[in-house]
Amino acid sequence: MTYKLILEYDGTDFSGWQIQPGVRTVQTEVERALGTVLRRPVRVTVAGRTDAGVHASGQVAGFDTDMPVDPGRLKKALNAILPRDVTVVDIAETWPGFHARYDARARVYRYTISDRRLSIGRLYAWHVRYRLSRELLVEATRPLNGPCDIRGFSKAAEEEDFSTVVLKNQWMFEGNLMIFEISAVRFFHHAVRSIVGSAVEVARGKESPDLLRRILDTGDRVLAGPTAPAAGLCLVRVIYGESGE
Amino acid sequence: MTYKLILEYDGTDFSGWQIQPGVRTVQTEVERALGTVLRRPVRVTVAGRTDAGVHASGQVAGFDTDMPVDPGRLKKALNAILPRDVTVVDIAETWPGFHARYDARARVYRYTISDRRLSIGRLYAWHVRYRLSRELLVEATRPLNGPCDIRGFSKAAEEEDFSTVVLKNQWMFEGNLMIFEISAVRFFHHAVRSIVGSAVEVARGKESPDLLRRILDTGDRVLAGPTAPAAGLCLVRVIYGESGE
Repeated sequence: MTYKLILEYDGTDFSGWQIQPGVRTVQTEVERALGTVLRRPVRVTVAGRTDAGVHASGQVAGFDTDMPVDPGRLKKALNAILPRDVTVVDIAETWPGFHARYDARARVYRYTISDRRLSIGRLYAWHVRYRLSRELLVEATRPLNGPCDIRGFSKAAEEEDFSTVVLKNQWMFEGNLMIFEISAVRFFHHAVRSIVGSAVEVARGKESPDLLRRILDTGDRVLAGPTAPAAGLCLVRVIYGESGE
Repeated sequence: MTYKLILEYDGTDFSGWQIQPGVRTVQTEVERALGTVLRRPVRVTVAGRTDAGVHASGQVAGFDTDMPVDPGRLKKALNAILPRDVTVVDIAETWPGFHARYDARARVYRYTISDRRLSIGRLYAWHVRYRLSRELLVEATRPLNGPCDIRGFSKAAEEEDFSTVVLKNQWMFEGNLMIFEISAVRFFHHAVRSIVGSAVEVARGKESPDLLRRILDTGDRVLAGPTAPAAGLCLVRVIYGESGE
């Protein structure tokens, strides 16, 4: 039997998703909880290996077990022992051989910027100390729709074989908050944060509005702005084949 | 000169607003920061003395000084030295003799409930472990509109002289979140949390839908449900005379 978990976590106190010795990671907590409840070692696959400090409201993990489980009861049992900063939002049985990473058709990320200092919600946003033009944010990121070669937003040359993806993005503005949502089949390491960092350089007037277009056209990593901080980023949804999800 | 400050704070790590020896309070931090920047002791008045763990996005404080200040520069200077969980959102000069508490015409509070476990935003909501009927929340609190004697939601008998206030409330539902907004010229200690605690007893089916009506009619404190936890509560706005604010 194969099961799919939807996970929410507050990345603030985690050294990212992936198990590493000596540090606190989300994978460690999830696999430990599954092992405790199912009384056997469990390994999970995951849709997006989020970095230290990055949040998720719709991370997807998958695991196999030879013992059928009741999804509702398993969810309750896991949430009873998981630390407060990780929550199992949903569990469902899925097709045999499901792999959370390889089967994903799209990942949707949100990045939240605030141009005023925040106390409430400060762990989930990047406070930019400049006045940002909403119009320039929209204009700067307009080229990131449709098929794009995003190698210029990557730091690692070896990933260039898969550098063209179909992007879709939108901005939501609520008072001092600017929320950027972007989806693609996959992103290079730090790509969303590099895109946001570059868009902010435009919106504060430091770079010309065609900066992101030039990065796409040339693939030149040197052009990109500073990588935006982890705290503003959240993996909100992963889309698979079944029924549009 | 008299100035009015709009304050946001995350109440999680505070023992409430009011200065008390040996504990961390918002008033202590704000008066210390003002004292440092203005180089003299400053006392502030406040619209709502929030309890330990209660948040504010629109708390109002007032202070007098014989030295005129530039509001924009003072705000910057204060935010540069205040701890991350307190933010000065705005400063403006106001009328002489302004008193943040006595001049307030209405306080607006929000209470956030979630009927699923939260990791992101868990410091700003009450996780109720029962399935709650949205319809019953609305029905239960409908009597809390217009002039009401709220002594039944108070724990302290001495406050009964001022027990009739004009209430206005509304619910907002967003997925698993239920957000209750209520305003009155003033609230008794714990009144909003007592109202929410009572409404939840109705919405989970433990009390009949007329519970809050009966508490209003009889003023009987014994009827009220358990006081809802502090973390869900936020003082969002204080309304004064000037130009509708």
